[in-house]
Amino acid sequence: MAHITVSVEYGLHCLLWMIGSEIRPMSSRELAELQGVSPSFVAKIFPKLEKAGIVRASEGVRGGYVLAKPAPEISCLDVIDAIDGKKPLFDCQEVRGGCVLLGKKPPGWAINGTCAIHAVMLRAEKSMREALASQSLADVAEAVGRKAPPEFWNTFQAWVDKKAEARIGKPARARPA
Amino acid sequence: MAHITVSVEYGLHCLLWMIGSEIRPMSSRELAELQGVSPSFVAKIFPKLEKAGIVRASEGVRGGYVLAKPAPEISCLDVIDAIDGKKPLFDCQEVRGGCVLLGKKPPGWAINGTCAIHAVMLRAEKSMREALASQSLADVAEAVGRKAPPEFWNTFQAWVDKKAEARIGKPARARPA
Repeated sequence: MAHITVSVEYGLHCLLWMIGSEIRPMSSRELAELQGVSPSFVAKIFPKLEKAGIVRASEGVRGGYVLAKPAPEISCLDVIDAIDGKKPLFDCQEVRGGCVLLGKKPPGWAINGTCAIHAVMLRAEKSMREALASQSLADVAEAVGRKAPPEFWNTFQAWVDKKAEARIGKPARARPA
Repeated sequence: MAHITVSVEYGLHCLLWMIGSEIRPMSSRELAELQGVSPSFVAKIFPKLEKAGIVRASEGVRGGYVLAKPAPEISCLDVIDAIDGKKPLFDCQEVRGGCVLLGKKPPGWAINGTCAIHAVMLRAEKSMREALASQSLADVAEAVGRKAPPEFWNTFQAWVDKKAEARIGKPARARPA
């Protein structure tokens, strides 16, 4: 399994669809259906995103999830930490203290402070996290949005409206005549 | 399991002990014993390091492994790639192509090029790998060596000599009177 999981991948893809979601809350089931992925898998991601303050449940007949803050304020790192937790890149076993030359009570010079190997890994992790923190959901959406033709977003809105209508049994919003 | 494994941790610790190893080749069993770790575990690491050109087997009665190149020319990334392989940080499932709005044959704008989410992960991976490539075995050894008192290295050399003597049945080198 890769360090950054498929749950993060699904979570980020869902969140991209949810930009501007205040006017069209979506259920996790709809987000899964839209993307052709497992609804039960996606359902497990949303409580984590909600706990981290990235999405919130919107009440009412057109209820569903919406982003809890503006897309430029949600970084890719926020989403990764919310879904995967703050997993370390490297899990130091403190090998240095087990050296047979040091005896059963290793001296301070051998075990105090961070192991030099662990320190290298921590610096690499910091570089990785800084790169992930520097990219917001809005940045990623901008890269995606540049490629999609304008009519695609109309198709998307119509799909969401149809789903909402099916849920509440009437047109989700006034349509131009 | 952390992205960078315990095999890498053991491998790096072994390699640090091997700096200057041309004059005292060590077996993987001795390196494991010295550090109080599993010999069978360490034995599995060395063929990978040898294949990557980081260590080589030294022939003769005092045979064992030695570094295949100077410590400043071996980066932490070289060791990680040799032992763990070039594992990606993120394994893109190309979720974007499965969107139900795109139909069975997604248009080029939707699937050509690298997915914008994957691109963020690749930049983070690049930052991480650059940090790991910038640190050589010599850099790490310098940080460790600063802490150990000079007499520790005499104790280490005596331990290696004793092991070699036990192997070949006579003093491993001339000792000062």
